[in-house]
Amino acid sequence: MSQSQSQDSALPAEVEERLTFDAQGLVAAIVQQHDTGEVLMLGWMDAEALHRTLTSGRVTFWSRSRQEYWRKGDTSGHRQYVRSVAMDCDGDALLVRVDQIGAACHTGTRTCFDGRDLQAVVGHEED
Amino acid sequence: MSQSQSQDSALPAEVEERLTFDAQGLVAAIVQQHDTGEVLMLGWMDAEALHRTLTSGRVTFWSRSRQEYWRKGDTSGHRQYVRSVAMDCDGDALLVRVDQIGAACHTGTRTCFDGRDLQAVVGHEED
Repeated sequence: MSQSQSQDSALPAEVEERLTFDAQGLVAAIVQQHDTGEVLMLGWMDAEALHRTLTSGRVTFWSRSRQEYWRKGDTSGHRQYVRSVAMDCDGDALLVRVDQIGAACHTGTRTCFDGRDLQAVVGHEED
Repeated sequence: MSQSQSQDSALPAEVEERLTFDAQGLVAAIVQQHDTGEVLMLGWMDAEALHRTLTSGRVTFWSRSRQEYWRKGDTSGHRQYVRSVAMDCDGDALLVRVDQIGAACHTGTRTCFDGRDLQAVVGHEED
């Protein structure tokens, strides 16, 4: 299989039926460093990318911009080794805990959120 | 403003221009407990929901299923108080750090990922 939105998913039926893919056949995948708790990045997976992630020990995404599979670290060396994968209550998001080698972000920062804070009012119990 | 995908965003121009909304006018919002690092849930925000989140101290989402704004905790009491908000490198994801009161998940679990692990091969450096 090399195409997104395959009808003939490689996922076990009991996993496939609990997932809710969007109109593009994708679910959001939050990637978190397993020991520090850092949220590293958000990527996207179709059924095949998730199958590869669950069975290979390395994280594979579906690239929406390039329309191809993308195994994290193959070009950069910044691999993500899988520690665990969980789905959320309504099956349209995944939490992938990994051991991240080097920078998760293609810009060179450890996470894709580093140094990109927006100005926000901090909330308190009385709000 | 009460509709999603408004052309007349309440966001500051310098924030709006750095964001990349999807075809539905939304960005993914990862919500993380600020002190423990727990990833609590994934929600969706349009420009107005983000504006409300940045300016009120409480997290507001756009509900894709109900097609309405949804300020977390208004019905459940399980409020999310904002600590910080960051965008990612390509502007289509947000990391919202909060102080979560009670359960983040409507099913009653602390996070939307609790007890929902998928079977996964653990990766190692030689993979």
